[in-house]
Order: sequence, then C-alpha cells, then structure tokens
Amino acid sequence: MKTQQFVVVGLGRFGSSLSLELMDLGYEVLGIDRNDEVVNDMSHQLTHAVCADSTDEEVLKSLGVRNFDCGIVAIGNDIQMSILTAILLKELGIKTVVAKAISVLHGRALEKLGVDRVIFPERDMGVRVAHQLVTPNLLDYIDLSKDYSIVEMNVPENLHGKNVGDLSPRARFGCSIVAIHRETGVIIAPTAMDMLKTGDIMVIIGSKKNIEEFEVIINEYSV
Amino acid sequence: MKTQQFVVVGLGRFGSSLSLELMDLGYEVLGIDRNDEVVNDMSHQLTHAVCADSTDEEVLKSLGVRNFDCGIVAIGNDIQMSILTAILLKELGIKTVVAKAISVLHGRALEKLGVDRVIFPERDMGVRVAHQLVTPNLLDYIDLSKDYSIVEMNVPENLHGKNVGDLSPRARFGCSIVAIHRETGVIIAPTAMDMLKTGDIMVIIGSKKNIEEFEVIINEYSV
Amino acid sequence: MKTQQFVVVGLGRFGSSLSLELMDLGYEVLGIDRNDEVVNDMSHQLTHAVCADSTDEEVLKSLGVRNFDCGIVAIGNDIQMSILTAILLKELGIKTVVAKAISVLHGRALEKLGVDRVIFPERDMGVRVAHQLVTPNLLDYIDLSKDYSIVEMNVPENLHGKNVGDLSPRARFGCSIVAIHRETGVIIAPTAMDMLKTGDIMVIIGSKKNIEEFEVIINEYSV
Amino acid sequence: MKTQQFVVVGLGRFGSSLSLELMDLGYEVLGIDRNDEVVNDMSHQLTHAVCADSTDEEVLKSLGVRNFDCGIVAIGNDIQMSILTAILLKELGIKTVVAKAISVLHGRALEKLGVDRVIFPERDMGVRVAHQLVTPNLLDYIDLSKDYSIVEMNVPENLHGKNVGDLSPRARFGCSIVAIHRETGVIIAPTAMDMLKTGDIMVIIGSKKNIEEFEVIINEYSV
Amino acid sequence: MKTQQFVVVGLGRFGSSLSLELMDLGYEVLGIDRNDEVVNDMSHQLTHAVCADSTDEEVLKSLGVRNFDCGIVAIGNDIQMSILTAILLKELGIKTVVAKAISVLHGRALEKLGVDRVIFPERDMGVRVAHQLVTPNLLDYIDLSKDYSIVEMNVPENLHGKNVGDLSPRARFGCSIVAIHRETGVIIAPTAMDMLKTGDIMVIIGSKKNIEEFEVIINEYSV
Amino acid sequence: MKTQQFVVVGLGRFGSSLSLELMDLGYEVLGIDRNDEVVNDMSHQLTHAVCADSTDEEVLKSLGVRNFDCGIVAIGNDIQMSILTAILLKELGIKTVVAKAISVLHGRALEKLGVDRVIFPERDMGVRVAHQLVTPNLLDYIDLSKDYSIVEMNVPENLHGKNVGDLSPRARFGCSIVAIHRETGVIIAPTAMDMLKTGDIMVIIGSKKNIEEFEVIINEYSV
Amino acid sequence: MKTQQFVVVGLGRFGSSLSLELMDLGYEVLGIDRNDEVVNDMSHQLTHAVCADSTDEEVLKSLGVRNFDCGIVAIGNDIQMSILTAILLKELGIKTVVAKAISVLHGRALEKLGVDRVIFPERDMGVRVAHQLVTPNLLDYIDLSKDYSIVEMNVPENLHGKNVGDLSPRARFGCSIVAIHRETGVIIAPTAMDMLKTGDIMVIIGSKKNIEEFEVIINEYSV
Amino acid sequence: MKTQQFVVVGLGRFGSSLSLELMDLGYEVLGIDRNDEVVNDMSHQLTHAVCADSTDEEVLKSLGVRNFDCGIVAIGNDIQMSILTAILLKELGIKTVVAKAISVLHGRALEKLGVDRVIFPERDMGVRVAHQLVTPNLLDYIDLSKDYSIVEMNVPENLHGKNVGDLSPRARFGCSIVAIHRETGVIIAPTAMDMLKTGDIMVIIGSKKNIEEFEVIINEYSV
Repeated sequence: MKTQQFVVVGLGRFGSSLSLELMDLGYEVLGIDRNDEVVNDMSHQLTHAVCADSTDEEVLKSLGVRNFDCGIVAIGNDIQMSILTAILLKELGIKTVVAKAISVLHGRALEKLGVDRVIFPERDMGVRVAHQLVTPNLLDYIDLSKDYSIVEMNVPENLHGKNVGDLSPRARFGCSIVAIHRETGVIIAPTAMDMLKTGDIMVIIGSKKNIEEFEVIINEYSV
Repeated sequence: MKTQQFVVVGLGRFGSSLSLELMDLGYEVLGIDRNDEVVNDMSHQLTHAVCADSTDEEVLKSLGVRNFDCGIVAIGNDIQMSILTAILLKELGIKTVVAKAISVLHGRALEKLGVDRVIFPERDMGVRVAHQLVTPNLLDYIDLSKDYSIVEMNVPENLHGKNVGDLSPRARFGCSIVAIHRETGVIIAPTAMDMLKTGDIMVIIGSKKNIEEFEVIINEYSV
Repeated sequence: MKTQQFVVVGLGRFGSSLSLELMDLGYEVLGIDRNDEVVNDMSHQLTHAVCADSTDEEVLKSLGVRNFDCGIVAIGNDIQMSILTAILLKELGIKTVVAKAISVLHGRALEKLGVDRVIFPERDMGVRVAHQLVTPNLLDYIDLSKDYSIVEMNVPENLHGKNVGDLSPRARFGCSIVAIHRETGVIIAPTAMDMLKTGDIMVIIGSKKNIEEFEVIINEYSV
Repeated sequence: MKTQQFVVVGLGRFGSSLSLELMDLGYEVLGIDRNDEVVNDMSHQLTHAVCADSTDEEVLKSLGVRNFDCGIVAIGNDIQMSILTAILLKELGIKTVVAKAISVLHGRALEKLGVDRVIFPERDMGVRVAHQLVTPNLLDYIDLSKDYSIVEMNVPENLHGKNVGDLSPRARFGCSIVAIHRETGVIIAPTAMDMLKTGDIMVIIGSKKNIEEFEVIINEYSV
Repeated sequence: MKTQQFVVVGLGRFGSSLSLELMDLGYEVLGIDRNDEVVNDMSHQLTHAVCADSTDEEVLKSLGVRNFDCGIVAIGNDIQMSILTAILLKELGIKTVVAKAISVLHGRALEKLGVDRVIFPERDMGVRVAHQLVTPNLLDYIDLSKDYSIVEMNVPENLHGKNVGDLSPRARFGCSIVAIHRETGVIIAPTAMDMLKTGDIMVIIGSKKNIEEFEVIINEYSV
Repeated sequence: MKTQQFVVVGLGRFGSSLSLELMDLGYEVLGIDRNDEVVNDMSHQLTHAVCADSTDEEVLKSLGVRNFDCGIVAIGNDIQMSILTAILLKELGIKTVVAKAISVLHGRALEKLGVDRVIFPERDMGVRVAHQLVTPNLLDYIDLSKDYSIVEMNVPENLHGKNVGDLSPRARFGCSIVAIHRETGVIIAPTAMDMLKTGDIMVIIGSKKNIEEFEVIINEYSV
Repeated sequence: MKTQQFVVVGLGRFGSSLSLELMDLGYEVLGIDRNDEVVNDMSHQLTHAVCADSTDEEVLKSLGVRNFDCGIVAIGNDIQMSILTAILLKELGIKTVVAKAISVLHGRALEKLGVDRVIFPERDMGVRVAHQLVTPNLLDYIDLSKDYSIVEMNVPENLHGKNVGDLSPRARFGCSIVAIHRETGVIIAPTAMDMLKTGDIMVIIGSKKNIEEFEVIINEYSV
Repeated sequence: MKTQQFVVVGLGRFGSSLSLELMDLGYEVLGIDRNDEVVNDMSHQLTHAVCADSTDEEVLKSLGVRNFDCGIVAIGNDIQMSILTAILLKELGIKTVVAKAISVLHGRALEKLGVDRVIFPERDMGVRVAHQLVTPNLLDYIDLSKDYSIVEMNVPENLHGKNVGDLSPRARFGCSIVAIHRETGVIIAPTAMDMLKTGDIMVIIGSKKNIEEFEVIINEYSV
C-alpha cells in the first residue's frame, strides 16, 4: 500500500507542528510557505519543503499538488490567501482538503467553498485548556456527547492505598473507572480489588455531572 | 464555597475562547487586553473586561489582580509582554500562573520565571489534528502513555449489525471497547451481546499498535 | 409597485458611479463604505450612505440589509473583505448578489460562494476600449455572439450625400444598416432612399468579418 | 499595409486587458510598467514588455516610442506619473495619445495637456452595470442619443412560441426588433412570421421610454 | 487704486518667504496650506491664512479665490498637487498664475496647462550662489544678456585711496563703474576724481569677460 | 594658476544646479551624495561624483577633501547631517565652508560652528520672486542698501520712440538710466539722445522710492 | 541662599534618573520632554514637568528657562534636536549647559557650539563596567590619573582575621589602605592593628600596577 | 594562566565601549550583534566580531560560546532579545552572565532567570552626573555606604598656598585628605605640612554631610 501523502500550506506554529507529527507517524509531507526562512528551517525535517505562492495555480501544478491525498491549509492570519489556496487545492482535485479558520465567518466561507473540514485550533485549544484549569487533576478528556465524557485524572494522594471497590464509583457516582495507568503498565477494566496508588492515572467514563461530583468528593476524601 | 476567579491576560482567539469556556463552566473571569476594540467585544461576555497594560504593576494592583486564584497569560505574539506579565502575576502572589508559549525558548524562559504551567496551543493542536487526519474514523483520543491510548471512533458502515462479540476485539486485537455512544444514550462497558450500528461512536482502549491494527481491519471487514 | 432597492458596498470610482446611475434611474440606494470621507462625499447623493464594516453581520442586520432587492459588492482591492461581505449578503437572504472581481481566482471564489453574477469592470473596459482604438469610427458596439455584432459608427466624410442604396451594404458586405441617428432624430430601418450626411451615426448589424470589411471600404470610398 | 503599433503604459487590470485584446485583434503592443513582476507576467503575451520608468524621456526614446501609432496611458492611481507620461508621449510625436483618468480634475489636466482622448473606465463601467442591474433581461446596450438606444435582451419564457407579429412591438410600443439571435444563427430584420423561443436573444431599437415599457409588458405577458 | 491681492498656495520655506515679502511690500496675501501647523504659524503674519485642500474646487470657490489678482503655486514636492492646483487657479479665472517647478518635465507640464510663469527657485539660486562663490568680492549681479552683466563688488583693500581715474576701468578693461555705495550714501555715476575706500561697494557694468579681467587685476593691484 | 576646486555635499535641486554652474564656469567639482541614483545621474557632468556618507570622517579623508578650496554643504532637509558635515569640512581644514540653512536656528548653529557663509536659498528666492511679481516690468534687481537699488526693467510699449531726454529720469525722479540693452548690443551710460524701443531693457539706479515712482509713471505715460 | 534650579531636556532613562537624583539632593528641577506619556509619568516626581518642543525658542522663553542655573540636554538619540536645544539654552543665557553626546562627532559639535560640558554616559559606563568585570572584588574606583587610582574592594574570605599590618600593603605592594568600611562604621586611615573581616570593604590607593598585583596576591593569599 | 575570555552580545554605545575597554585591559572579546554594519565597524578592534542572531541556540553553540568565562548581554532596547539571550548564555554553561536592564521590571526578569549581575547603565550614570553637577569641584566619587563617601575634588583657587594643616579638615570638618594628586605625582596620606596648589586634585574621605560642609566652606574660604 502506497504511503499517504499530505501537502501542508503554511508552516507557522500550527502548520509545522502538524507537519512534523505527520512525518513522525510515517507519512510523506510537502510543506509550502511563502517565507523563505521558515522553509529553510523545515527543509530537513519534511519530505519536501518549498518556498512558493500557494495562490498561483501554475506553481501548485508544477509541484504536482494534484497527486496528493490530502491538503491542509494551515495559513495563519491571511484570510484572502487561505480562501484562494483552498479553492485551488479543491480545483486541482485533491480528495480531502482541510483548512484552519480564524473566525466564524472565515469558517463559513471555507465550508461554502467545498472545504471538507474546517478547524479552529486556537478556539478548540482555549476550550480544552479551560477544562484542565478548573479540574486540577484533569490531564485530558474526550467529550462523548453533550452530557457524557471520558476523563483522564491523576489519582490524588488521599486515595493512595484504596481499592476501586472502596470507592465504588459506579454505585455512588454513576461513573466507571475504565483503566488505571501506572509506570509499570495499564490495567484495563480494573476490578474492585485493584488498588490505587499515588502517581497512578485513572480513566473514568460517565456523565459530566457525575464525574464532576466524583472529582469533588475524591479531593475531599479521607478515611 | 467561593467561586474560583480567573484573570486572563490577552483576549485573542485563544484567550477569548478560554475565557468564554470558563464563564460557561460557571467561573468568574477578568479579561485584560491592551486593545480597546477587543475589550469592547468581550465586555458583555465576561465578569469584567478592562483595557490595560498588563506590564504596569500599578494597574494590576488597582485591578485587585492579587486576589485571583489563577492567572493565565494568553498573550499572542509579544514575548516581551508575555514574560513581563508573567513575572508580575507571580510577584503579586497569584497562586497558579499559566502561560502560553510560542517557541521552545519562550517556554523555557517562562518556566525559569516560575510559571506553574506552560502551554503550547498551536503546537499541541497541530499534533492532535495530525492524528485525526491519518485515521479517518478517529474523532478524538487521549494518550495514556507513550504506548497506550483511548480513542473515540465512528463505527464504519460494514460493522453495522455486528455484535461486540463478533468482533472480539480483546481476543483478536488486544484492545477493549469501553463504551458505545449513540443518539439514545451511552452504553458503558458493553457486553458481547451489544450490537453496533451505523452512526454509533465506540470508545476503545488499548496499546497504540493494537488499536491501529484494529482500525485497519474494521475498515476492510466484511462477513 | 414598490421601488427596487439596492445596497452598494464599496463607494470607490466604480461603486459610486454605479450608485449614482441607479439613483438617476429612479431607484433607492444604500451605500456602505468603511471610509468616512467617501461616505460624507456621497451622503447627499444617495438615499442613504453609512460608514460601516461590511463584514460585521450585526451591523448589516441593523441596517436592514436583508430587505434589499439586490446587493452589489463593489469593493476595490481587498479580496478578503469582498468575499466575506458577499457571504454575509447571501446569508442575510438578499435575492440577487452581484460582485466585482479583480482576478480570475477571485471570480471563481465568488461564484462558488453563490454570488449570482460576477463582473470584471477593468477587464471588460480594457476589451471595450481596445475595440474602439482600432476602429477609428467605432463609437460603441454589442457582441451578439462570437461572430455577430452590432456597431455604432460615425459616417465618414466621404459618404456624405450617398444613399443607403448606393452603399448597398447588404448586397456587397452582407451587413445591414438598422438605424441612422442624426441631430434631428433617429431613422429606424432606413430605406435605400435615405441619404447619409457627415455627422450622422449609423448602426450596423452583421458578422464581424463583414462589418470589418465594410468599415475598411467606406473609409476608402470615393465615387 | 503595416500593422498598427500600440504602446501601453501601465499593465494593471485595465492596461493588461486592453493590451491582450489588442494582441488578439492582431496588433503589435509594447507594454511598459515599472513593476518587475507585472512585466514578467505579461512578457510572453505581448510583442514586447519592458520594465521602465515612463517619465524618463531618455528611456522612452531608447525604446523607440516615437514610432508607435498610438500611446495609451493606462496608469492606475498615480496622477503625477500619468500626467508626466502623457506629456512625454505627446512631445515624442505619437499621433494619438489616449489616457485613463481617475477623477474629473485629472481628466481636465490630461485634456489641457493635449491628450486626444480621455477615458474613465471605472465610471463608465459603473454606469453600464447599473443599467444591466435594473433590467433583468438586459444583456448589453448602446446609447444612440439621450433618448434612443439599442438593447440586447433575453427572450423571457412567456414569449416562447410567439411570433414577432403577435407582439407587434412597433405598433404597440414604438420600437423594433432588428435581430434575433439564437444558437443556430442570427436572423437580421426578422419578419412578423419569425417565432421567438426561450433562449433567443432579441435586439431592439427604440426610444428609451418605449423600450422600457416594452420590457415591463413582455415580462408580464401571457396569452 | 485697490491694493493688489495675491493668493499663495503652499507655505513652505519658499512660499512663506514670498508671502511675507509681499506683505512687507504692502500687498494683501491669502495663504493656503494643507498643513495645520504651518497655517497657524503664519496666520498672524498674512492677511488671511487657511488650512485647505487646494485641489478641491469648491473650497477654492468658497475662499473667493477667483477675485485675486495673482495666484502663486508654491507647493514643495508634490507634482500632482501642484498641477491640479494650477489648473483650478487658471479655470477660476485668476489673471496671472505663477508656479514653482521642481523638474524640467514638471515645468513643461505647467506651461502646457497655461501657467503664466514657471519658476525654478532652487535651480536659479544654485546658479546665483555659484557665481558668488567663484568671485570672492562679488555681492550680487544681474545678467543683462549672455555677454553683459552688472555686478556689485566689494572694493578690495589694495584699492583703498585710489581714484576711479587711477583705475580707468573703461579705458583699460572696457567696463564702467556706475555707482559707488558707502555708509554715507550712494555716488551715482562717479567721476574720475571720486576716491575708493575700503568698505565701499562699487557697481560695475560691462561684458562678462571684461568684468572678469577687471576683477582679477584689482585683486592683484598694487601701486 | 591652479583651477579652483569645489566639493559639494548634497546633489539635490540646489546642490546640483550649483555644481553644474561651477562646472560651466570652468571649475572642478567633486559631488557627494548618499543617494546612489542621484550620483549616477550627475557622474558624467561633474569632475567626480561619489556616493558616500559625508559624516564619516574616514571617507572624507580618503576622498582627499582636505585639499579642496571650498566646501559647500547643500544638504536638503537633514539638519543633523548638515551640521555634522559642516564640522568635518571645517576640521579637515577646508578654507571656505559655505552651508545652506533651512531655518533661522539651523543658520545660527552653522555660524557658531564656524561656517564661513550661511545661505537660505528658498527664503532669498521667495523675496526675489515677490519683487518681480509686484513690478510687472521688473526683470532682476540688486539691493545696494536699505534704500538704493539697481533694477532691470522692460521698456513698456508707451515709451517706444521716446528719448532718454524726454523722460529726464534724473531731473524728474532722481534716478538714472545706466544702460540700455537691446538685441543689437548694450548702450552703457546712454545720453539724452538715445531712443528707447519696445523690447529694450533699461537698467536704472536710484533710491527705491524714486524708482518706484518712476515705474508707476512710465506705465501710465502717454504723450 | 536660593536653591539651585536645573532644567533637564529629555526624560529618558538617563535624563529621568539624573532628574530624580537632583530632586533627592534637594534641588529644583524642570523636566521637558516632547513625549506626553513620559511627562505624565514624571510630573509628580519633579518640581515641574512639561511636554514641549525644546527647539521652539518661544516655548523655552515662556517657561522662563533663562532663569535656571543649569541646563542639561539629555536627549536620547536625536542629534539634530540635541544640537538645536543646546544652542537655544546657551543663547537664552543659562550659565552652565551640559549635554549628552552619542558619538564623538556629536560631542565635537556640542563643544563648538559652546556647551560647557559634554558627557558620554553609555561610553563611560561601558568603561566602568569593564573594570568591574575583570576585578571580581572591585566595587567601584576613581581614576586619579593615568597611573594612579583609588579602588573599593571586598575583603576576600582568606583575609578574614588578618591585621592590616600582616598584609603590609605599603611595604610589599606600594599601596595603602585608606579606609575600611564595615556594617558598624567606617575606619578612616586604619592602623596596622586594625583587623580585616569577611564582609568588610577596603579602600586602597596606589598606582594601578601595584593595586593590580595586590589584588592578585590577596586572592591567592593563605597563611 | 589563560587570558580570560568575554563574549559581548550587543555592540551599541554601551556594548562597544565595554568591549574596547576589555580589549585595552588585555582580555579577549567576541562581539556579537545582528547589525551587519556595527559588526564591520568593530571587527578590527575586537578579537572576533560576528553578525549573528543571539537567540539562536545553534548559532551560539557553533561560535563556541560555552567556553567563554563571562557573557555580557549589552542589548539596547529589545527586552525580548535580551531575555532570550540571557537564558541561552546561562544554559550553555557560561559561569558568569551579566546583563544590562532598561527598566526595573526587566531587571527583575533577568535576576529570576539566573543572571549573575544586572546593571542599569543609564540610570547609574544619571545618578553619577547629578552629583557632579551639584558640586562644581567634584570630579568623581565612590559611595562607601549610605553615609560615607570618597570624593575627588579640584583644589579651588582660594586654597592655593595653604597647608593641609591650615585647613585641619579632620578637626574642623571630620573628614580626611587621603591623597593629593598633581602633575608631578601623587602624595598619598599627605601630612599637615603638604601645601595645596591651584591645579591640584585632592581626595577626601568622610561622611557625606561632613564633606558637603567642607566643600561649601572651602569655596568661601579666604584668609
């Protein structure tokens, strides 16, 4: 099977981080930026990196952009350039075009132009960080729905030595511990006998309300 | 219990998104930005929003910043302002100071200055989006460790009507389905009898390698 | 019947000329420009003229833009603003949105966003002036098709006193004189007896090739 | 006969469109612009294109500008440059100098300096587009005089299948259909027997007032 | 007799010096400049001084510019503004319009536009200063023709006590001393008996060549 | 005798005019300007022209500036550069340093720094032009003192055919005609018999008041 | 005795520090700066602080600057402003004018203009810091002459408990300890019996060479 | 013993003065500045001078910065660059890092980042100059403590011919003359018999209050 190929336009903080992660994951990446220095910095870390104007159709053609599997418009602040680049990538026949938007209106424009997926990195990261700030033990989380989520939390010190059974989270809070992760490995679907230790990370699933209550309680928990 | 209070310096895309989410979560937020227009736009959405120079100690004092529980330096691109603001917030005695960094060196400076947590929103979002791009069904994920993760995936069409037991993910791929989420609710810890449907979202836990194999297989799966 | 209402965004040379002509033709025009001075200059010549940011949805709503029959995006050189304004006008429900484009790519973007008609004033005027330059007697013309056109020409001095019949344009050149216009009035569908005079303007219909031959001949014509 | 030669100073949107149309029409064009990139873009499409300062007399002489038949000053926004270029072109002895003006005062200056024809492309295009907007079926038009014009209109659906005689435009509205253009060809001076079809374009001559009435009626026409 | 009225547009170094001298000479001066500060500085020294855009016809009309006897366009470096102002002053009907030019081409434009007199202050002053530099005793001069001039010179020390007759400039050098100016008064048409003193200034008329020889000799003169 | 050598710093309108006149008068000129283009334009017209920073002592030394007879600081608007250059020219030992000033304060600074002669070209030219404007026949003039001057005037038409004796300027106005200049030559110290003709230029010496009266009278003169 | 009055022009880092120290020493200070904000910041710390253009003679007069005892031109980087201000302060009759120079040439200009003392703060501070860097124990020093200096040094730990007599600096190194300063007071002209302690600071006078040797030895000193 | 090596980042007025003094004192200096011209000017005066970005870790490594004994961050006004450079110098392992601060907050940031010594050249120089201004005879001084200092003063004319004993400074003012410096040499610890002369410089130690009184008295001193 042929390796999937990505073309990333815009190698700023978001675009370069995305490109490097794609490289790490084993894919091929063509990076395009109109800033000479940025391209030089990235040239040894990507499959190819070129300094070019992404709104020039001839340039994109000569780079063979049409043969790529996915195009990502990661242009920072220039809405005009972002929109014109997105149109060209679509017209050149790239199957999947993803674009970063910096405002709601920009996002709507991209969608109307046929962009397959519009992302708002700063907005999404703002939301994500807000959640982490208000839940001191929270490491990461997935929103399953408006009401349900999975959260990854540090085991607070006062739970050290307790069994999962002692906490009986399902019975008392309506949420389950689906995994415990510690240095020595991951316990999937722990039983009531599994003991928690300081330094462990537990993964909990449940309704947001229940998880919140659970979080408050365990922080105040004492035998 | 007193509501937790946050002061957010810098109300750009990241800072405003973070502030609004904190408001949504029920906390009090004082937003500070030196741009008049930005402050006006946010003034009705935050507890308070003021136009001020965050590197002026007297100003911060007069705003009572020292009484806040947490300070977030969300300044966009001005490293100097970010660093000087971070110092002042720490010196004024705010217990937790979080700051956004735009480069590795900037991050190191913030850490040395005593900032409690340094975040790299664009870099982190780049990584996160990269993962979503290479796994078409992937919706979100949590990295438990270098090797383990929890992923949220769409149930592909060819699994419609299969039981969890038919897939036997644990036996065949070494990973577990910890939840199935569909419009009508969330099935936590589904049994072998639970049936998958198009439109469902399943949450899988396992080693990254195993999840990847599982993902490839289910996309090719046919009875 | 209610007078038709137009909203014109961008009151530069093109936009202001268009607005004033619409006023002359008896329609109502709301002019919008973000430049204060421009708005002041036009305020007494249009039904309404306001200084506003046309990419701010709230502003457009408060101006009641949704009730207008036709919106014209006549923004000069700012592609970003042109595109975002066009989206908003469409989304607000204006039935017909016309927009000026400054490049082919800009034009394609506008079309994809649902703009009903895209115009290229400078390009079209360039073409029109080119035709006038190469045909000294040509005053104006309409391209009926790739091959046929109607042209308005000065009657050259050497035709003074000739009858239409003398020229027999249909027989000799395959094109017809459909009207003769002189100070005293217009002769529609002139007969062979009608006499041409210096100062007359004649309107000719035919294939471009035939008209071109006719034009060359009449310039060299002598009895 | 020697091909006519044009020198076009200023290769912006108007100047380049005009130059390309002149090339299409079979003439020779020397394009001059002080912007390097613009000249490069045009260099393969014009007879010659040079990057030069058009207010430097020596440069114009060395380009042999004096031998051209017609000079067009198509400079965008720089009135000073437009005026000084126009003077030089006249002084070098070019027979016909045409110049684009961006304001009434600019136009007066050009005329006083001896420019043979001053054009206002944006203003004229604004007027032209205004007419097309208010008459939905109008495709193009020629103003014969203050009162008379020739217009090119789509045949509306409700006229499909009608004979010219049914409409009797001359009798009822005082205006004539001088041609009908359809995919298969052009009918010049159609008779009462010629039948109209959806998709046809008809060319009408008459007083503006009459054409307007005719236009309103045919849109409401039903048998 | 009504006092002559001047309108001076542009109150830079040249324009303000000219305006103040006209005031000194007893005339009325309206000064116009678009720079607020400049106008304030001059407002108490001129009959009137207003801050206005001299290319706005309405403004000039409202200032009653048409009633002035003479208009001087003393605009510094802005050729466009200089040209447009000159046109307006002529069109408003001012009898005499004088304008400062900063280049030969600018000067030609002004002349073609009907400006009555074009002056080149910096160029003329450069010429004048050059003459003074090469003739150490020269104070001022008038060029009568290509060959003849009148010069004003210091009497060098070595001529102290000599009679005009001793020098016999007419006989020996072909030039005449037409006046001697000393602190106590002016001797017009001095005789051979008039004695020169250090500190005197003599005015000499003659061919340039002769004056030059005379100048060299008197500097070397010793009894 | 060695030709005198001048170094002119600043080749703007004043400096270049001065330099070219010095060349015309047969002297050697080294022109210095920091603007590349200006130097190129002048390089073929001066003995030498170099692009250099005139405030860099080493540069001035390497150009051998110390050997020049006279230095002229003709720098346009940059007071700092003018002052620092003047100091260096004096310190390098140039005997005579002349500098252009653009304000009274600038002039005082130059004098205090030891500059031998400070000139105000724009101011002086403003004064000179003012005089010419208010005396229509005035061509040029020399101010001998506060009260006396020599003026060069056109002979007005109504004096055509008059003898100098008819005018008896000395008797009636207290001023003398010292020369009459016409196409065929110059009449120095004309007698009462010399006849004036239209086109002649007469040179008059006298008190300013007398000349003024004379000027008014001859304009109204009729036999 | 009347308190001495200082006027300080330029309230940057150097000027404001100097002004505040003068206030601390009990003098009156008028601070002048053209920057509004800077003046506001200083207004409560100086006797008076005004925002004004220090090159405007009228302004300086109206501030009564002529009555001050000393004027300090502490303008940062604008040589032109520094020079023109210095001239005005001298001309207004201030007895002592001190000015900061930023280059050797600037310094020479100020001296020629009659400034009483020219200082080079950055240059002098560079020299001073260099000395401190290369002598780790050096706290401060005075250069008495090219060869002699007084230095203030920390007493290194290995001299703790030694008597001045033990060191016999005069005999062994040709330099004297003129004072010992410790928390409890200053011992002027210490005797051989006075004992040194860690934390003491000693003041040494001698030739630079001798002090240097002494400094090297005492750092290596051990009983 | 190996010569000590310094790296100085920022070669402005302060940095270059410091670098040159270190060279004079016999040390090796590597100068770094991002301004090309500045580096060229210094390149022959320092051991090495390179044009580089001091916030680029790779660049600093390749220059072998880690092997230097002391790093001085003498960057002028760019706080961001100053801070990032300081961090890198510390992280690369340079033992002593000294940095210039331009504000109190900047200074605090540098200290928190581990900079060994923070200096405020402009502020310190302002203080130093203030002292010299208010004490006309003061040449230099060292502050020993809040109360004590050593000052270097000119001997005023009225003390000429007096013995130290005549003044008896210790008895009358509580301060000692520790040295007298005159052209012929330095008298350390002068006796009561040593006579003062005009032109001598005396070094006095004592409490500030006493020195001040002494200074006032000797200026008024007369036998």
